[in-house]
Amino acid sequence: MKGLRKITPYTPGAQPNHPEMIKLNTNENPYPPSPKVAEALRSFNVEQLKRYSSIDNHSLKKALGAKHNLSPDHFLIGNGSDEVLAFCFLAFFNSTDPLLFPDITYGFYKVWADLFKIPFKELPLNNDFKIDSADYIQLNGGIIIANPNAPTGLFKPLSEIESLLKENSEVIVIVDEAYIDFAERSAISLLNDYPNLIIIRTFSKSNSLAGLRVGYAIGNPEHIKIAESIKSSFNPYSVDMLAEALAIAAVEDGNYYQEISKKICKTRDWFSENITTFGFSTLVSKTNFVLLTHPDLNCEDLYHYLETQDVFVRYFSKIERLKNYLRISIGTQEEMEDVYQLLRDYVTNNHY
Amino acid sequence: MKGLRKITPYTPGAQPNHPEMIKLNTNENPYPPSPKVAEALRSFNVEQLKRYSSIDNHSLKKALGAKHNLSPDHFLIGNGSDEVLAFCFLAFFNSTDPLLFPDITYGFYKVWADLFKIPFKELPLNNDFKIDSADYIQLNGGIIIANPNAPTGLFKPLSEIESLLKENSEVIVIVDEAYIDFAERSAISLLNDYPNLIIIRTFSKSNSLAGLRVGYAIGNPEHIKIAESIKSSFNPYSVDMLAEALAIAAVEDGNYYQEISKKICKTRDWFSENITTFGFSTLVSKTNFVLLTHPDLNCEDLYHYLETQDVFVRYFSKIERLKNYLRISIGTQEEMEDVYQLLRDYVTNNHY
Repeated sequence: MKGLRKITPYTPGAQPNHPEMIKLNTNENPYPPSPKVAEALRSFNVEQLKRYSSIDNHSLKKALGAKHNLSPDHFLIGNGSDEVLAFCFLAFFNSTDPLLFPDITYGFYKVWADLFKIPFKELPLNNDFKIDSADYIQLNGGIIIANPNAPTGLFKPLSEIESLLKENSEVIVIVDEAYIDFAERSAISLLNDYPNLIIIRTFSKSNSLAGLRVGYAIGNPEHIKIAESIKSSFNPYSVDMLAEALAIAAVEDGNYYQEISKKICKTRDWFSENITTFGFSTLVSKTNFVLLTHPDLNCEDLYHYLETQDVFVRYFSKIERLKNYLRISIGTQEEMEDVYQLLRDYVTNNHY
Repeated sequence: MKGLRKITPYTPGAQPNHPEMIKLNTNENPYPPSPKVAEALRSFNVEQLKRYSSIDNHSLKKALGAKHNLSPDHFLIGNGSDEVLAFCFLAFFNSTDPLLFPDITYGFYKVWADLFKIPFKELPLNNDFKIDSADYIQLNGGIIIANPNAPTGLFKPLSEIESLLKENSEVIVIVDEAYIDFAERSAISLLNDYPNLIIIRTFSKSNSLAGLRVGYAIGNPEHIKIAESIKSSFNPYSVDMLAEALAIAAVEDGNYYQEISKKICKTRDWFSENITTFGFSTLVSKTNFVLLTHPDLNCEDLYHYLETQDVFVRYFSKIERLKNYLRISIGTQEEMEDVYQLLRDYVTNNHY
């Protein structure tokens, strides 16, 4: 057979589904979507579905514009930030010079580069697992970093993002802010001064809508238009009617989401601090997960032990420098207290 | 700025939205989705949305497998048939020999070929607007045809599809069956004998779910796996939880959908026949639209006239051979009686 593509796909984390499990392996939000989202679902008239969904998602762009104080043409809406990122790779990374990104980051960047045959270089994080801006001063066809980064959880100060943008003014620099609501300042404030900046956001994490599939890019309208052309050439209606209606309801209930994000951050900081008493340490997370390690334990064993206790976390067997780390999403305070007890028990009773 | 993609996107039909309009321009279904779909929406627990949607859509594949009497691994599910087609283009059309498709067909085939830099040849329909199988016996890297074809509405007998498959056994032949539920026999019966066959289906037309974005491919499991790898490398969760739940409910209410498809076909045949009394003629449609023309009228003028009457149909200004044709989606019997009156009035009172 001629013409078949040979490809190694991205392998996502397992999606176990036990009634009693504590699921902390894909950075989902433990809290339900806003009551206003529930209300939007209840009041949705199913008959509308016979019509095509909006081709430009103007209503959602307007709601986002009001939230971020930008005009609607600063936004590209897509089926989750994964789709938005795929469109941006196709729109912006067409140079023969390599796309640059960290060696330890969202695993999908490499997969899109492979899929679209984009030349790329993975730049090692430094010894503290940080992105060293100096590394990104070299010939390149674009840059993508996640801030905060995953799975490290580390946040790069805006001043460093700004110097990246300044040093690379001739290429697009994508800052993937999937976890920004658990951190401090977004790079949005840099948009006016740096037309080469594209910011990516998602409703999957802080908005508790992973199952709804909505994400967006924010950028200079001229560049957004190019990404929009890619969307229109690939799958123009990808955000379905229900997804758009519910996402608008979410945007309009910022207060609810601020509250649950605060709760998650509080639990995260409580958890990170308290597990130090029995020898664990975490990188300083500004996300809804922590990357932890222990000097005397084998984290792969711990991963399997937790699984036997119906607690699912993420172990990156293929990343050499993370061989003794686990990434644990932050659940409810109650769930994290259970995990805290399990870890304490594991250490103090020498389960290993 | 380096690396920006230059591209001419697909331009979809306008989406007018007047309360009193008769919207017959995008081949949507005039009837609401099944009551079981409404019920699935009402009973959906919004809290689930905090979790990622299914990565393999196994439940929907199982439902489709039961419907079509095939195992679940014969199916690839995507965000509308547009996304499924895009994945299939990436998966199957990687030859340096040209992809073949008709010059008058779904306009998106050319757009994907351009987007993915796939060499292609558009083969003219014959004088009767039919796809001539003999034209497809030539060096190629794959074939895609729509059956029934759009915007002609013509159905190609299965025996001709079979000879296409036989003559092109070394490449993938995609048969896009978006409108098959308004026609007679699907090519599914050929799947066992022709592993090079991929069939595309959508929930947008006969299932009244254009706004929900669900489509699928049916094929040899070995080939489906390759398309699945592309999906996993692009946007693995593209079918959201609500879309999957509602699509399953639709599959399980085949009776309802058979009934409304029958109604639409009956209205289509009534309309096609009756407008001949004042000079219109249509190609023999096996879809939910008709392509009509009139020997004494300028169809572009008629298009604009209908617009002034709040009736929206499709005019293909860029396709030379369709300069005097209009594509009219079949609405409810009541709507088509109104259109019939308008057309009669237009002709008999010399509105042109």
